[in-house]
Formats: sequence, structure tokens, C-alpha cells
Amino acid sequence: MKNEFIQLAHGGGGRLSQKLMEDEILPRFGDGPLETLPDAATIAVGSDHIVYSTDSFVVSPIEFPGGNIGELAVYGTVNDISVAGGKAMWLSLSLIIEEGLPMAVLRKILDSMKIAAEKCAVKIVTGDTKVVHRGQCDKIYINTSGIGTKYDDFNLSRTRITPGDNVLISGTAGDHGIAVLTSRESLKMGNGPMSDTAPVHNLVAAVRKYGQAVKFMRDPTRGGVAAVLNEMVKDLNFGISLDEKNIPFSMAAKAAAEILGLDLLNSPSEGRLVMICDSSATDKILADWKQLPEGRDASVFGIVTKDSGRVILKTVSGGKRIVGMPSGEMLPRIC
Amino acid sequence: MKNEFIQLAHGGGGRLSQKLMEDEILPRFGDGPLETLPDAATIAVGSDHIVYSTDSFVVSPIEFPGGNIGELAVYGTVNDISVAGGKAMWLSLSLIIEEGLPMAVLRKILDSMKIAAEKCAVKIVTGDTKVVHRGQCDKIYINTSGIGTKYDDFNLSRTRITPGDNVLISGTAGDHGIAVLTSRESLKMGNGPMSDTAPVHNLVAAVRKYGQAVKFMRDPTRGGVAAVLNEMVKDLNFGISLDEKNIPFSMAAKAAAEILGLDLLNSPSEGRLVMICDSSATDKILADWKQLPEGRDASVFGIVTKDSGRVILKTVSGGKRIVGMPSGEMLPRIC
Repeated sequence: MKNEFIQLAHGGGGRLSQKLMEDEILPRFGDGPLETLPDAATIAVGSDHIVYSTDSFVVSPIEFPGGNIGELAVYGTVNDISVAGGKAMWLSLSLIIEEGLPMAVLRKILDSMKIAAEKCAVKIVTGDTKVVHRGQCDKIYINTSGIGTKYDDFNLSRTRITPGDNVLISGTAGDHGIAVLTSRESLKMGNGPMSDTAPVHNLVAAVRKYGQAVKFMRDPTRGGVAAVLNEMVKDLNFGISLDEKNIPFSMAAKAAAEILGLDLLNSPSEGRLVMICDSSATDKILADWKQLPEGRDASVFGIVTKDSGRVILKTVSGGKRIVGMPSGEMLPRIC
Repeated sequence: MKNEFIQLAHGGGGRLSQKLMEDEILPRFGDGPLETLPDAATIAVGSDHIVYSTDSFVVSPIEFPGGNIGELAVYGTVNDISVAGGKAMWLSLSLIIEEGLPMAVLRKILDSMKIAAEKCAVKIVTGDTKVVHRGQCDKIYINTSGIGTKYDDFNLSRTRITPGDNVLISGTAGDHGIAVLTSRESLKMGNGPMSDTAPVHNLVAAVRKYGQAVKFMRDPTRGGVAAVLNEMVKDLNFGISLDEKNIPFSMAAKAAAEILGLDLLNSPSEGRLVMICDSSATDKILADWKQLPEGRDASVFGIVTKDSGRVILKTVSGGKRIVGMPSGEMLPRIC
């Protein structure tokens, strides 16, 4: 049977990824914090709570316009902790390196990680290095895991979302995916798209004061905004209506996506935050975000509806279309 | 220059691994818990302490006599936490899978992980899955990280070791490395060596009552007993004298090592504990260990000497030789 072998799409963040989780991971390990497949687990340690997450990074090429695999590996885990309502504090760093990697390349990646960790005020506290023969990995794969302390301001849960809530994004959508893809395919583009790789920790810290009004946060990585929003509405009695004209896209990403025939809503970002909040707090959150460099393009681009389980896009031309969960694998090894 | 490219030995646990840590990792990240390169970091969370570790597993073949990569990935991280004086509680699980891996193989690995996690009373609480193209990894690589709570019974530090302390091992040395190697090379051996893959958490819990008398613990993985002991004595004013006749070896591992011309002291174990303790507690620890199935072959095999920085072996034939830090890479992808 076709699905009895691992396919690229099993790692793509879309339908097959979801199926792999539901069929293989949850039945074995889903009786604890994994049950709801959050970006990060929340765990009680004594009288405190910690937030714990992991990600392996296999992006190709390892350097791309706007970043490299090293800073991506730091920001990716910091962001997973951030959107779960945590303040990232400590990271682990595990390297799988292909024999023959120039030491200069490794040094450049480690330098980027150091700068990225300082930017996020996190410390790399434990690690591991494995080397495999030539041809048994592609240059370098990096795993980071991370631990954060839990902010007690938030009460984040999909189940708190109700019709009338707003959907916000902290910046332009889909840049990272398009930037990696164009660089991988050696498409030379003057002023081509740049990855948005960046930490979202300041965006999260800025909205702590709105506490309960913040209902849910995710970073739209694999599968992009489309996957994140479809995960949000899944099996719950609300839907989301998006207004295309309010979705911020960078000019370069939009141009490249049109040339390549790709939908930026399916393209990953690596430095953006998607949030659902009570409409009473929307204007204040937007104003605060816009004061941060990483939030200057923030926008309200959707509203929660009673249309159970569906994500609908109102297009700029006045039509409507369903935004589905991405299927297949548009972008293998994008992060 | 030869060393300006990553070599297999950079991941082997011996001299080049140590050099990579000292030249590239410590200057960038060594200003915190990483400074002493422990198996696991100890971190204060509120009024509690946690123990935090990570390992990536790239063993080839993924199934070997006595185990597979799945249980190895659980036990490996549980063991790193255990020897740092922690009780492992929560694990992360990150998979990098090669496109085309049969789902049945993945299921078997995940089943082993589930059983292993239950055996250690740890919970897998967060995870990640990436899929790479055929030929970009070898079947599957698994990263686990783990968090444990810190036992407050111990005061583990190399600097507490003094001449006259005893060196103990909880079971036979080097089985894992030889078992993987013989299976990789398809050497058919009747009653061939079996991996010792197992958790050491019960061995650690059993000696909590001897508290301060337990000075240092390590699991002798990459580089084997030789690497672990050389790390212990490095730059400190004591040495270690080993008595070959008291080192437990399994018959099968010994036979295979002789055929292959390998030194079992350099071969990894994945379910053993090497401990330095005050000689007043030696007999009691040994007796307690021997009551556990995983400690039945435990032995006192060395004593701490004043011979600064050197590990000396008294051979069964009455000679002496220096046991050096392994150099080169005897066994790539052994764990």
C-alpha cells in the first residue's frame, strides 16, 4: 500500500503529518502532555511550570537568503516555547554532521547560534555531536530542544476561542519558505525573497499585559498559515474567515510565489506569530506590536466565525474559497 | 589542513571529539553549565533543580543483537540523566526519517520506545518529525532530550575524587560496541555478543543511601571505559590503576573482540555504570548492585592513585600498560 512507506509529506506539516501523529504517535505516547500535540509541553516542576519543546532542523541549503540552519535552530525552538506562553531559558544542541564538512562552515553555523542565543537571552547548556559517513546526511542536521519558564499571564487554549475573536499575524506571511525554495533552485532573483527567520519572544512578552484576552498563539512554520489555522479549527465548533487584502505579504515573496505558482498561505514563516484574541484587545495588541521592529507589519487578517471547522478566504477579487489543510509536500527540508 | 574538515573521529568520543568541544563549543557556549561538559546540565528552576540532557542516535544497523535504535534512544538519555544524579521524568522525541522507510520498521522502533519509556517510568511529552529524501539520512536518526529531577542525596564532582577511592563497574564492559560491529559486518557468530542496552536508573537509585560516598558516575558509551576514565583523571592530581582480572567481560564479547583485534576497553557499553566511590562504601554498593539483575556482574576493578592524569592497567599476565584516550574512530555510528 502506498502509505505503508514513509513519504516526504509525512514530515510536511500537512495531512500526512497529522495522520502519522494520529496513527502512530498518539496511540503510543498520547496519554500525557502530548495529547493535544502542542508546540511545547507544559510540565509541573515543584511549584513551578516549565515549557519544553524540541525540533530537528534539516533545511537545505544550510545557508539561505536571510539566515542559516544555526540561527534557525535557535529561533525555532525559542519560538515554540514562546507561543506556548513560555520564556525560553535553556537550550540543548545536538549536531549530526556529515564527514567532510569544512570546519569553516561549522564555525559559521555555531557563530550564528551564539548570536541568536544571545539575542533571545537563552543559554545552550547541554549537547551532543555525532558524525556520519559521507552521504549519510546532507552536510549537517541540528536538533535543539529547549526549556522555558511559564508566564502565568496567559490561559492559552483552542477551546477558549469563540466567534467574534480576531485573527492576527505579526508580520508578512510565507517569506521563509519561498526564500529557501528560490535559493535551493538557484533561481537568481534581484531583490529576491528573504527568510523571516527571527525570534518571536518579544512579541509574546509584549502582550502579557492583555492576559486572558490572548486565547491562542502559534508560529506558522511547516504548512504555513493554512496549516496553523486548520489545526486551530479542527473538531471545534467555530471556523475562521480570512480577508485576503489584510494578509501582509512582502513584495519579493509575492512576486516569487507568483512565478513559481505557489500559495504563500502554505509557505512557512520562521519568525511570525499567529494569534487569536478577544476583539476587545485587538487594537491595543496591534498598536503594541507595531512599536517593535519585528511587529511593524502586523495585521488583523481574520475573524472567528460559527462556520464549524472551516477556514474561508475572502479574495481581493471578491470571491470566496476554502483554505484547506495542505496535502502533499510542497517544500521538503524547508526547516 | 587535515583537521580543517570534520572527520568521523570528531564524533567518536575520543581525542578529536574532545578537541572539537574545546576548540569550537566551549569558547562559544562554555560560560554556563556546559563548562565542565557533563553528561547532563543541572539547572535551578524555582527552588528545585532539574537535570537536562540530549543525545542524537545514528546507530547502524538500526536493529542489532539485543536491541534497536528506539530503545537505545530512550535508555541513552535516561542514563545520562541518571549518572548526573537525576531521576529521569520527561523525554522529547525528534525523528529524522529517510523517505521510503517501511512503516512497519517505524512502528517496531516506536513500540520499543514505548516499552523502554515505561520501563524507566519516563513520559515522552513533546516531539518533532522530519522526513528527508532518499539517500539524505540512513533509514532513521533519533534525537531524545530529557529532563529529570535532581536527587539531593549526591554531591557528584570529579574534584572530590581522592587516592584510595575505588572504581566500580556495574556489569560487563564493551558489549554494545562489539555487538553492533559484528552485526554490521554480518559476521555470523553462534552465540555472538549481545548489546547491553539497558537503563541504569535503578543502579543509581540503589546507591542514593550512600550519598556523599558516591563521588562520580558516568556511563561508558563512546570511547568505552578507556575514554570515561581518561576524562575523569584529566588535569587533576590523581590517576587510576585498573586490575584487568577484575574487569568483567562477557565470553561472547571477549571472543569477538579477539577475532576482530579490538580492545573492549575502547568499546561502548549502553547499559553500564562506572562509579568512583569512597572505599568505605565499596562493599555495600557492590552487594546492593548484585541484588539487581542489571548489577549481577558488578565488580571493583580499579583504585584511584596519586599517579596524576594517568590510567594504568595491570594485565593478567602481570605487566602494566597505559590505557590512553582512544584516538581515531574505531566504531563510527555505534550509538
